[in-house]
Amino acid sequence: MDIVHTVAELRARLKKEACIGFVPTMGSLHPGHLELMRIARDQVDKIAGANGCIVVSIFVNRLQFGPNEDFGKYPRTLADDCEKCRAAGVDVVFAPDESEMYPEPQTYVVEPLEIQHILEGAVRPGHYRGVATVVLKLFNMVQPHVAVFGKKDYQQCRVLDNMVRQLNLPVEMLLAETVRADDGLALSSRNGYLTATERAEAPQLNAALREIVVELRSGNRDYMALEAKAQATLSVRGWRPDYITIRRQLDLLPPIVGDRALVVLAAARIGATRLIDNLEVSL
Amino acid sequence: MDIVHTVAELRARLKKEACIGFVPTMGSLHPGHLELMRIARDQVDKIAGANGCIVVSIFVNRLQFGPNEDFGKYPRTLADDCEKCRAAGVDVVFAPDESEMYPEPQTYVVEPLEIQHILEGAVRPGHYRGVATVVLKLFNMVQPHVAVFGKKDYQQCRVLDNMVRQLNLPVEMLLAETVRADDGLALSSRNGYLTATERAEAPQLNAALREIVVELRSGNRDYMALEAKAQATLSVRGWRPDYITIRRQLDLLPPIVGDRALVVLAAARIGATRLIDNLEVSL
Repeated sequence: MDIVHTVAELRARLKKEACIGFVPTMGSLHPGHLELMRIARDQVDKIAGANGCIVVSIFVNRLQFGPNEDFGKYPRTLADDCEKCRAAGVDVVFAPDESEMYPEPQTYVVEPLEIQHILEGAVRPGHYRGVATVVLKLFNMVQPHVAVFGKKDYQQCRVLDNMVRQLNLPVEMLLAETVRADDGLALSSRNGYLTATERAEAPQLNAALREIVVELRSGNRDYMALEAKAQATLSVRGWRPDYITIRRQLDLLPPIVGDRALVVLAAARIGATRLIDNLEVSL
Repeated sequence: MDIVHTVAELRARLKKEACIGFVPTMGSLHPGHLELMRIARDQVDKIAGANGCIVVSIFVNRLQFGPNEDFGKYPRTLADDCEKCRAAGVDVVFAPDESEMYPEPQTYVVEPLEIQHILEGAVRPGHYRGVATVVLKLFNMVQPHVAVFGKKDYQQCRVLDNMVRQLNLPVEMLLAETVRADDGLALSSRNGYLTATERAEAPQLNAALREIVVELRSGNRDYMALEAKAQATLSVRGWRPDYITIRRQLDLLPPIVGDRALVVLAAARIGATRLIDNLEVSL
């Protein structure tokens, strides 16, 4: 496995590769990320036989953090992450520093005009502009055939999948199912912020989503009542929900009559930590 | 020469090409465009021997026209343009229609945050957002090694060259000198709008720029006086200048003491037609 830190090294290393699978990360890798790497490997092997090349980028992207968010304390564990990548059969780790990604102030950005202002975008202004811009830059650096993202960050998946389509990027997007702990908690680098008590409570976020899905499957279409009940349940338990909401999968707008491909999304704070989760449901 | 109209046809045609040179146009081709094609051919031949492939796109991009601009009456001469491309040794003409370029409303755009608001950008709000977005889409469709743009649209050259650098696009940008008529008028598709009288007057725009360059070369640094004099001269002759201004080449901001790479830019209306021109001057 090669570890490269500059765009020039990266391009030289990838010049002869026939088929590149790419997993962009912010590091602090957990089994959810390893699953994305496995999916990338499967897909490039399907396309190019055993000649595929898996690239993982590790870069904590300041551009997608708000001024009051956890950019400074976001976990940085590069040596450990590289060991996990090596064990997972990754070919190239690209770990640029900030001056390599942003050698000058970034004055050219991708604006996802609509979807960036709702849900996570409403709570985190500028977040999806930062995500879309860094992923476009990374795509241009790596030039992957296949890129894999986890549905844990559901709105991010939609933002990026729509970006690829609307900007005609020559990349196949694979969106992977969320990997969970046995008790249902979605794996996340931010779970490391939780105290033992909070960790024991954390699966209740997923439990609230599952309860809504059961109701939807049983025919209940009173979305507002379902959302309000889940919010109340979590609030009573000490959570501070930002949103718990039922949306259409494709554009994350409220469903209209006849919509059958739905997703239930939640973001809530427990103690000092903000967790997100979601469940797709096709009726 | 192949003429293709869809992204799928284009990608299939270009799949095996070793080195692609690209000239994006809005059609209505004149000798200035043909010069860009010649430069593209020279460069890909240098890189790939005789195996280079020249692609010209022809698309009048609604996204870069303001609501009161000449989108509707912009000349469309596809058959004639294709003949000129064939004669110029072009390999592929890509002529998508609007539903191919914009199959849905374009909600993902590139924002050139600073430079888009000055000079042409001030007169034509949204113009450079539209230019940057369509060129990024075209780059993603064609995946060229080399792209050629004419300095006639000087600010566009700077917007796109900066975009390529800031978004890490794997494209070599070549900026070509403006091709002029014998009397100095910069070639432009919009020259076709001019009456015979206006056409006779039109070279005065370039003459005004040349006069400023002579003054700069002779040591005059009173930029404001030079700009005001040129504006007055043209106004007396019946022009309505939008701007005549001396700027730094790289970011088109006003020069500061010590700047030596300058450009004089002008935009002015004569009758119903708006013409632009510029001259670089390195002191």
